[in-house]
Amino acid sequence: MLDKFRDECGVFGIFGHPEAANLTYLGLYALQHRGQESAGIAASDGIQIRHRKAMGYVNEAFDATALGTLPGTMAIGHVRYSTAGESRVANAQPIVIDSTHGQFAICHNGNLINAGEVRDALVKVGAIFQTSSDTEVVVHLFARSREDGSEHAIVDAISQVRGAFSFVMMTKDRLIGVRDPNGFRPLAIGRLGDAWVLCSETCALDLIGATYVRDVEPGELVVMSASGMKSIKPFAPAPASQCIFEHVYFARPDSYVFGESVNEVRTQLGRQLAKEAPVEADVVIPIPDSGVCAAVGFAEASGIPMRMGLIRNHYVGRTFIEPQQSIRHFGVRVKLNPVKSIIDGRRVILVDDSIVRGTTSRKIVRMVRGAGAREVHMRISCPPTVSPCFYGVDTPRRSELIGATHSLEEIRKYLDADSVAYLSLEGLTSCVSGGSTKYCTSCYTGVYPVDFPRDETAYLQLALKLNPDGGNVEPREFAFPALEKDSVTS
Amino acid sequence: MLDKFRDECGVFGIFGHPEAANLTYLGLYALQHRGQESAGIAASDGIQIRHRKAMGYVNEAFDATALGTLPGTMAIGHVRYSTAGESRVANAQPIVIDSTHGQFAICHNGNLINAGEVRDALVKVGAIFQTSSDTEVVVHLFARSREDGSEHAIVDAISQVRGAFSFVMMTKDRLIGVRDPNGFRPLAIGRLGDAWVLCSETCALDLIGATYVRDVEPGELVVMSASGMKSIKPFAPAPASQCIFEHVYFARPDSYVFGESVNEVRTQLGRQLAKEAPVEADVVIPIPDSGVCAAVGFAEASGIPMRMGLIRNHYVGRTFIEPQQSIRHFGVRVKLNPVKSIIDGRRVILVDDSIVRGTTSRKIVRMVRGAGAREVHMRISCPPTVSPCFYGVDTPRRSELIGATHSLEEIRKYLDADSVAYLSLEGLTSCVSGGSTKYCTSCYTGVYPVDFPRDETAYLQLALKLNPDGGNVEPREFAFPALEKDSVTS
Amino acid sequence: MLDKFRDECGVFGIFGHPEAANLTYLGLYALQHRGQESAGIAASDGIQIRHRKAMGYVNEAFDATALGTLPGTMAIGHVRYSTAGESRVANAQPIVIDSTHGQFAICHNGNLINAGEVRDALVKVGAIFQTSSDTEVVVHLFARSREDGSEHAIVDAISQVRGAFSFVMMTKDRLIGVRDPNGFRPLAIGRLGDAWVLCSETCALDLIGATYVRDVEPGELVVMSASGMKSIKPFAPAPASQCIFEHVYFARPDSYVFGESVNEVRTQLGRQLAKEAPVEADVVIPIPDSGVCAAVGFAEASGIPMRMGLIRNHYVGRTFIEPQQSIRHFGVRVKLNPVKSIIDGRRVILVDDSIVRGTTSRKIVRMVRGAGAREVHMRISCPPTVSPCFYGVDTPRRSELIGATHSLEEIRKYLDADSVAYLSLEGLTSCVSGGSTKYCTSCYTGVYPVDFPRDETAYLQLALKLNPDGGNVEPREFAFPALEKDSVTS
Amino acid sequence: MLDKFRDECGVFGIFGHPEAANLTYLGLYALQHRGQESAGIAASDGIQIRHRKAMGYVNEAFDATALGTLPGTMAIGHVRYSTAGESRVANAQPIVIDSTHGQFAICHNGNLINAGEVRDALVKVGAIFQTSSDTEVVVHLFARSREDGSEHAIVDAISQVRGAFSFVMMTKDRLIGVRDPNGFRPLAIGRLGDAWVLCSETCALDLIGATYVRDVEPGELVVMSASGMKSIKPFAPAPASQCIFEHVYFARPDSYVFGESVNEVRTQLGRQLAKEAPVEADVVIPIPDSGVCAAVGFAEASGIPMRMGLIRNHYVGRTFIEPQQSIRHFGVRVKLNPVKSIIDGRRVILVDDSIVRGTTSRKIVRMVRGAGAREVHMRISCPPTVSPCFYGVDTPRRSELIGATHSLEEIRKYLDADSVAYLSLEGLTSCVSGGSTKYCTSCYTGVYPVDFPRDETAYLQLALKLNPDGGNVEPREFAFPALEKDSVTS
Repeated sequence: MLDKFRDECGVFGIFGHPEAANLTYLGLYALQHRGQESAGIAASDGIQIRHRKAMGYVNEAFDATALGTLPGTMAIGHVRYSTAGESRVANAQPIVIDSTHGQFAICHNGNLINAGEVRDALVKVGAIFQTSSDTEVVVHLFARSREDGSEHAIVDAISQVRGAFSFVMMTKDRLIGVRDPNGFRPLAIGRLGDAWVLCSETCALDLIGATYVRDVEPGELVVMSASGMKSIKPFAPAPASQCIFEHVYFARPDSYVFGESVNEVRTQLGRQLAKEAPVEADVVIPIPDSGVCAAVGFAEASGIPMRMGLIRNHYVGRTFIEPQQSIRHFGVRVKLNPVKSIIDGRRVILVDDSIVRGTTSRKIVRMVRGAGAREVHMRISCPPTVSPCFYGVDTPRRSELIGATHSLEEIRKYLDADSVAYLSLEGLTSCVSGGSTKYCTSCYTGVYPVDFPRDETAYLQLALKLNPDGGNVEPREFAFPALEKDSVTS
Repeated sequence: MLDKFRDECGVFGIFGHPEAANLTYLGLYALQHRGQESAGIAASDGIQIRHRKAMGYVNEAFDATALGTLPGTMAIGHVRYSTAGESRVANAQPIVIDSTHGQFAICHNGNLINAGEVRDALVKVGAIFQTSSDTEVVVHLFARSREDGSEHAIVDAISQVRGAFSFVMMTKDRLIGVRDPNGFRPLAIGRLGDAWVLCSETCALDLIGATYVRDVEPGELVVMSASGMKSIKPFAPAPASQCIFEHVYFARPDSYVFGESVNEVRTQLGRQLAKEAPVEADVVIPIPDSGVCAAVGFAEASGIPMRMGLIRNHYVGRTFIEPQQSIRHFGVRVKLNPVKSIIDGRRVILVDDSIVRGTTSRKIVRMVRGAGAREVHMRISCPPTVSPCFYGVDTPRRSELIGATHSLEEIRKYLDADSVAYLSLEGLTSCVSGGSTKYCTSCYTGVYPVDFPRDETAYLQLALKLNPDGGNVEPREFAFPALEKDSVTS
Repeated sequence: MLDKFRDECGVFGIFGHPEAANLTYLGLYALQHRGQESAGIAASDGIQIRHRKAMGYVNEAFDATALGTLPGTMAIGHVRYSTAGESRVANAQPIVIDSTHGQFAICHNGNLINAGEVRDALVKVGAIFQTSSDTEVVVHLFARSREDGSEHAIVDAISQVRGAFSFVMMTKDRLIGVRDPNGFRPLAIGRLGDAWVLCSETCALDLIGATYVRDVEPGELVVMSASGMKSIKPFAPAPASQCIFEHVYFARPDSYVFGESVNEVRTQLGRQLAKEAPVEADVVIPIPDSGVCAAVGFAEASGIPMRMGLIRNHYVGRTFIEPQQSIRHFGVRVKLNPVKSIIDGRRVILVDDSIVRGTTSRKIVRMVRGAGAREVHMRISCPPTVSPCFYGVDTPRRSELIGATHSLEEIRKYLDADSVAYLSLEGLTSCVSGGSTKYCTSCYTGVYPVDFPRDETAYLQLALKLNPDGGNVEPREFAFPALEKDSVTS
Repeated sequence: MLDKFRDECGVFGIFGHPEAANLTYLGLYALQHRGQESAGIAASDGIQIRHRKAMGYVNEAFDATALGTLPGTMAIGHVRYSTAGESRVANAQPIVIDSTHGQFAICHNGNLINAGEVRDALVKVGAIFQTSSDTEVVVHLFARSREDGSEHAIVDAISQVRGAFSFVMMTKDRLIGVRDPNGFRPLAIGRLGDAWVLCSETCALDLIGATYVRDVEPGELVVMSASGMKSIKPFAPAPASQCIFEHVYFARPDSYVFGESVNEVRTQLGRQLAKEAPVEADVVIPIPDSGVCAAVGFAEASGIPMRMGLIRNHYVGRTFIEPQQSIRHFGVRVKLNPVKSIIDGRRVILVDDSIVRGTTSRKIVRMVRGAGAREVHMRISCPPTVSPCFYGVDTPRRSELIGATHSLEEIRKYLDADSVAYLSLEGLTSCVSGGSTKYCTSCYTGVYPVDFPRDETAYLQLALKLNPDGGNVEPREFAFPALEKDSVTS
């Protein structure tokens, strides 16, 4: 909710249901936490693909009239988060085109590492790009493919891109799902009666009453059509490197991601943290909502009772007037309020899932002290984040990551906590099956499973297009909400 | 959020602060849970009162430009919930008028029992009413008062109305707070530096960094002016009958209401419930968010662990497209999703604060069973609600209250629960200081501390104006959200 | 279109037609030139009066959905122009109230001279005013009338106001039209099949296909009900003083006003002007559109051909971006463009209906010279306007009227014209039947047929309310459009 | 305004002015009559081209904030009219792209005859089209051109298209204007101080205070850059075939088009018409506004006085509620009202510029008769229109053209006129210099100066894309306004 990494997209698709667009709307609604900037749906009635995209939440972007313009039994949809500079409807997805292979629609969760160089090559031969999105290169590769038939053209196009991608695509009569060979981002398969569903997280299946079948596997391409589901693995295999941060923070706790219950993993992180970093205290308080699961585990393993000592304001809107006078911890107070009767006179353990810059944590610690806490111990259910992500997550540059630039003791002092402890990397990977052999932990280690292009300039050229004000090694700047910036008190 | 009584208003006022309108905006924002339909602010610069009202949430109704049109060091504000038929900006508050006593602005939380007969009498002598709100009668009584000076005119006007009222009022140079002699609705006094604050709940003080001083007492009228705060008690005294439902459900847990911590009272309700209605089970699951405090208390007293087994969707908007096909428990699923890994195979205790019609509870029980629960035990942290409220709470008619029309066993069967238990009235009142001698419990008992007018027709005449489609004994119909109505499955 | 007096309102009413609201919409549309700021309609189905008001043009303020909420066979409507400071929907009409005499709706064209003192007296006894409109005093007088029945109460109320008024009013089953005893503003009666119509100008009858019957007479009150039309004359008679400016500029040329064809009167003004102020020239050019009729008459009487040498831009919107650099005559060029092939090398007679400040005329003369005119002769089809109007017309203060502050020769120099001539007062009155005995010419003479209140302060109190920034003797300030102000070049 | 051919676009460009975007806004405003559906502006500051497009009139599409986002000393702009089915902002212009030749922006007035076949060929090699506009093929041809430098690439691209085109284009540091070798559509060059201007009509020069220099010649390409204006003629020459309908109806009378004053040509058409088709009558009445110039000429030549006997309503909006009951001639009455005092008892000559279907003319004749005309003689200042236009004009299919399907006597009967006469083709061409050797008269003759593609199917494929509901030989359907359709009375 504050000072967090941001997932960039949620994707959804359905084949073979008379209410395809309506159910896609619901699926996107369940995936809203994966992207709040724009929403889009494309639907096919077997003859024509129609689509609609708009800025804002799913339920703002679509009403019954809008959904009524999207007939057909197939649909795909997308929710997107992006940095402020490129927040415009042209960059929303699905991207839908006419081509010599017929109409084609695509939704993407991830980031294509070589998009910049591919784009440059395409522009040189006359391709006209409409967006600053990396996804558009796939569309051009598809349109230009000499392969026969849309499926071959899709494989041809995807073979030319590298990085993190979970695609949900559609031709006028086929739904296609693809995960990159490393399997960075999730993509699940479900069934609703005879209909097939694809989605980023299983919570989307729950909302529409569908059943979770299995995940699309890393490197797998599935095609749903009138003749059922077909699976191929046309790409060179690679070691699995699934995003462990999905379990730490991104996914909803009621989802299954990479085959495991997010709630169980997250609670286990809390238990492990209690074992690794115990402290004598009176009460365990989660920083809502993301710290709740780990706090439950921490409380259970430590035997210290958990209380909801910080109340979240559910009416927080996207705009807010700040008073000109400085009100202590104002920025965070709009979102969280301490419950004095729980905190006053107590030794408090605050449990959070992660710290990015530390600015919000610092304000929370001070607010909790202001409510009368005798001691404040901060416990974080993952290791310090020290490296930006290049695989579809919005992260600040390394220099802004407090875990990369400060020692633990410096962090403790900055936060003004009595103690601070992070979960160990081993502790983290012990909580997921397969552990380090199946997961990407680059944000904790700086070790990147897929290389960047040799010609880093070319890579950055894309980055700069995406974020014209940037200019550093990291591809995307984190957009500090104005609120945060102004309300930092030192 | 679902199938609940609804509080009708939140009020706020501040005197003596250079950012009066901005702080009122923030105060209303903290009180948003007390009314989401409209918001309004009036501010005075000592010479002129200006005001602005709009439909929607506070942060939708006001932006920096709008607040900029409200200069001055005094302001009052209001958030309002009302039934659908009268949802229009004319009924929003504050009501601001010119009069022979000068400009006057008023915000009201409560319900005036004799508004209908007073209104009729006023219309007969030529008063022109602009709203269907009961509050407007006070405005006319004030404008017509022969008393000398605005304070005397205010006392004169209020002396002629009966029922539940916490008023925050303003002349061009005075802030006035009043609570009815029974003290039905809350009203707290705070200080922010030299400024005085009035508000429905102390969470509004927390957000702006103000200190809680005390409550306005039942029957007390306080005047904040350049010469400080003055208190008078001009009305005939009456036995205290504060609304116990503020503690059960309405107020935010981080507030102090009627001098007590809502969180503490609510947690104690859970402990008492565990004592009164124990059951063997594996996990205590709150129905979020209102059941959380009581669930914590229940878990503590019972020794059964609490888990967040129902995840609330934070992106629920005010409009939503429902699929035409029936999806099981759809209505509730949009708002809550069960966490299978917590529920599957377990004996579950669901803790909620209250049940009105039972339609939502029934769907939640079924959804929890669908997620694999072996047993489902429903525990409610207050007695069965059997009577509508006439003192400023939006309740359905008696015939719709499942607690009034069905036996406990019938309710259990309807909910399809393995057991159902409510807290006893004695248990409830034992958790608040003063208990039944200080609190109104009419919704549990049907015993009303302030009589309705003899001429019930006159009373209903107002009711009909307020709700032209009604016509029964109860003054206001509960407006079933469309979602609920359509998604009831039997 | 620029630098003109402004009529303040158009009124319309219909009784006994199944499409009453639709036809009122059309009637207002035909009267749009009488007020572009707000529009409103009230309709009665015999049981209840419903209404709707909005800012903007009629076709912006109402769509089919809005009209669909106004059922019934009776309706009244209003279009309004007002000064910027009070441009808000609360001041739009109809004003609709509940009263002890039943529901009542009123539309007003005119200005009540004693509104300020009546309002003060009413506020002193507790009346609460919702608008800054003079019309609202009639509503309060009606609501407070002790007379029996709504018709008597209406007569009672109107008897207490003085000034200019053409009212169209409605109870739930009656349509009422009234003209003040002097008959300042027009009000016509028409029939559409069995239905009765009231309207400011007959062009509204033409659009809906109704027939013109006659005017409501000065001092007459007509009641249309199920039993037909009834006429009474309950007020003290007064000498007729109809607004001659309706013929000069306000009314549409296709209307009959005060029983005469506006086109015929206006063309005759041109003929008379040619007689009074002939000049040798090559071409007569009207300043469109208001100068066209007089130019036709001038050309006919003088034998000099008329050409459309100034083209009006029909896409002028209400907002416009001005270049920062000064472009010569920019403000007027946006609205008018000279046709070089008509003007170049010619001696030009420009014909306009009136001059208020002269700023626009000056720019037009220069623009015409810029297009190559050898000589420019300005001819105005009415006398110099030297006094503000207090009877329902928006005029600037005397000090801004070029005719009041400058000699003819000074005006000629200011306009940079080769000659300037106005029509004589005798010439003007000779073109309407009844002449000076039937018409008010106060804007040309400063002789006012209805006195202002002795207590001028009380009168100005209202004026100040209406225009808080004002403060001079004149009741209303002319709001210079921003465009004009900035683009004056000297 | 009713039942007319529609011009499809207006274009504007300026080089070397600090307020380039503001002046483009004004230029488009002056050209608003050439397209009311959408408006767009692109501006370059020498480094980057920025642009903005929106639906609606220029002054709706742009405000000061929007213009403020378009810095630079160069800008181009476009207003567009199109058929209903493709009315969307994606089709608005300028089209702006990134390419290997740098950024490029283009505005187009005209129609490319071979757009369909070029588009098909481009799609086959992977080009992705974003619009259904014929202009986009030029953009793709440019992006794919192997020529060195943007100017050569532009010539290369344009060499591959055929038909009617006046282009205004921009690279980041050059403004380019082109007219097709036939010179179908106009394009004028002007100067404003040191700045260069390009525009469809000279009225745009007048508004911004610029001077008319000359027209871009048929087949000429001009480049305005820091080194002044350069002219080349890179295309194969063709006989001039300028659109005579620009003089008959499209252009504003205050413009010079193809080097001649539109007002003079149009007045001469009226004089010629009076010579060819005299009739005894009392009054000449123009159908406003398009018939005014010709009526002036007719009146002059015939000696019969002209009167403004039809008043146009200037507040006609784009939406309008029609009464359910049939009101005689309703559709036309909303826009025009007869002046009874001019018409009653007279023999009337109605002068209009053209008749397309005749539906509106018929209603006008009946309305004029209804106002008392003794005789009604219709005179049209051009020959019967018998063929659709393929060169950038929106026309109905041949079967809807009353001139193509009915004899003169049949037309007279349909219109219910006492006589009907059209101008002869010889009469028409005698009024413009160069006559038939310089002008295209295909809409009167069916003789088309530029052939359609042999493969007519390919041509129609584009047409169908542009208008999916069509399917006939004519490329574009005329979109009957709803008003017209419903209000036809027979």
